[in-house]
Amino acid sequence: MRATVIHAPHDIRVQEVPDPTIQQPTDVVLRVLRACICGSDLWAYRGEAARQPGQRIGHEFIGIVEEAGPEVSGFARGDLVVAPFVWSDGTCEYCAEGLTTSCPQGGFWGSVGSDGGQGEAVRVPFADGTLVKLPAAAASDDRLLTALLALSDVLGTGHHAAIGAGVKPGSTVAVVGDGAVGLCGVMAAKRLGAERIIALGRHQVRTDIARTFGATDVVAERGEAAVAAVRELTGGAGAHAVIEAVGTEESMRTAVGITRDGGSIGYVGVPHGSGTGLDLSVMFDRNIALRGGVAPVRTYIPELLPDVLAGTIDPSPVFDLTIGLNEVPVGYKAMDQRTALKVLIKP
Amino acid sequence: MRATVIHAPHDIRVQEVPDPTIQQPTDVVLRVLRACICGSDLWAYRGEAARQPGQRIGHEFIGIVEEAGPEVSGFARGDLVVAPFVWSDGTCEYCAEGLTTSCPQGGFWGSVGSDGGQGEAVRVPFADGTLVKLPAAAASDDRLLTALLALSDVLGTGHHAAIGAGVKPGSTVAVVGDGAVGLCGVMAAKRLGAERIIALGRHQVRTDIARTFGATDVVAERGEAAVAAVRELTGGAGAHAVIEAVGTEESMRTAVGITRDGGSIGYVGVPHGSGTGLDLSVMFDRNIALRGGVAPVRTYIPELLPDVLAGTIDPSPVFDLTIGLNEVPVGYKAMDQRTALKVLIKP
Repeated sequence: MRATVIHAPHDIRVQEVPDPTIQQPTDVVLRVLRACICGSDLWAYRGEAARQPGQRIGHEFIGIVEEAGPEVSGFARGDLVVAPFVWSDGTCEYCAEGLTTSCPQGGFWGSVGSDGGQGEAVRVPFADGTLVKLPAAAASDDRLLTALLALSDVLGTGHHAAIGAGVKPGSTVAVVGDGAVGLCGVMAAKRLGAERIIALGRHQVRTDIARTFGATDVVAERGEAAVAAVRELTGGAGAHAVIEAVGTEESMRTAVGITRDGGSIGYVGVPHGSGTGLDLSVMFDRNIALRGGVAPVRTYIPELLPDVLAGTIDPSPVFDLTIGLNEVPVGYKAMDQRTALKVLIKP
Repeated sequence: MRATVIHAPHDIRVQEVPDPTIQQPTDVVLRVLRACICGSDLWAYRGEAARQPGQRIGHEFIGIVEEAGPEVSGFARGDLVVAPFVWSDGTCEYCAEGLTTSCPQGGFWGSVGSDGGQGEAVRVPFADGTLVKLPAAAASDDRLLTALLALSDVLGTGHHAAIGAGVKPGSTVAVVGDGAVGLCGVMAAKRLGAERIIALGRHQVRTDIARTFGATDVVAERGEAAVAAVRELTGGAGAHAVIEAVGTEESMRTAVGITRDGGSIGYVGVPHGSGTGLDLSVMFDRNIALRGGVAPVRTYIPELLPDVLAGTIDPSPVFDLTIGLNEVPVGYKAMDQRTALKVLIKP
């Protein structure tokens, strides 16, 4: 089959690789129907996250089951399924608690020896624990399929941030980051009943999406000016619930600066850089909490899926460029240069 | 009256100062019956926290009301009262939410222009919002009076840490720090139903108190060895709820290292030092939350008071040296040199 392989920073190729096969009785092999490129894939692309030459890449996909191992009970050939960005056994203590990302048998798509989502097919370990079945009819609904793909990562990650930030009905929420996760954080906050949602972002195309997702205010400033603007919008106090969806020192500093005393930062931006951006003295004096991390999206899919199917929420607008598998290198370039927000792949 | 005054690092004196008087109609003047020295007072004593020469010091006290301003409705001459370590108006949005430490009209005892607790008398601003009445009979019960004094700070601060750490019935809890706050954290965790409480500390006198307060295990190691020991005690996983009651970079690093994936660190150690001790990448990968800060103990007193009065909990053993007001400089020296855990003052 053809799949995306990363050879070196900025050297992403679509090439022939061995077809996946059932290796464990709990495996499923599926054909990829939709995949996409994640902002976090760019860290590998830019060389800021180490990869061995030849690793696969891509961790968000929807597919159709081609073959199920003999111990797989929940899926059969022909099933339409969505995969979360981490596989997990579904049976351990962590999975039982919903923290599927800490499953000792879990792993990331594209890690050494495993398939990535940006290819024609994927071997899925622990299929019963990992995959979630979708209605077959969705396969013929292009818009819906795109929306459902967001369940793989960005929608569940935005939801995790909103939960970490403590969003409740009536909350005032601020969202740092106008990427796909930040926008999904806006959507998740709205879904959880936030009354006021302040989106921080400079790109009007993106902040326009934020508004359609539920943002009531947009702050285009950065750094200290952004802090001042959010404080002005909130009577000087800041937002009780703050979503941090970037992961840089500066974005975290902004998040701390705009959080109301006693509030929480729900952080889902993958941390990179040497500093944390956290001023612990400020957080201490003001009782600001920090909750979040890698999102256990598998746990959230059953909760979010009905709303996506019903159309109550529609994250599909975060995908603004659609390409075929052969064009994946072009897709990376577009996201790296920020000419695309999030790239949809139809293999 | 006589009161404790800090003139410079290591220069603490008990001297004559003006008698406090009612300055605002919401003030109370009270005579101090019991006060004490806090671990955080040592930062001023050691010059690690800046003070202007001549500032008063001490922020924990029980007293008897001598005079109440005309707008004070809750207290009258002769009432026995306990003061939390921050005064607060009791009427603002933050006080209504229970975050009394963020009250815009609030302040710390011993700040410039205000009395400190380590003296014969104190002017209490916003008495109705700040003070809590105690049963008059407690004044003649020496052991009970000492236990009640812990409501001023250490017991409520330990409780805040336990809440921040998410202690629930059945929790496994680890407590970093064997000072009075750490020990009260053990007590608070036990009170909230923790099943297993691992106290980290090297001083046997203190860890013996931890055991009487509810600790089921003691870890005497520090740093990496402490992390390994707690992990071994918890089947490799770490504790779901971790109380950080020191405030150094090393103690925070230990706290992160012993927290179970998906768990929380309740931090109440006043942060000092240049680094945070937080490895955000580790916290992100393992979904470790950080919650806490300066404890709004005023909010917790009504909840904790009945248990102290009933003797269900008795924090009085954290006070292991009793002195008169004139001996306060000796008390600081004893705590600085760690020959005393916490010093009780009978003015």
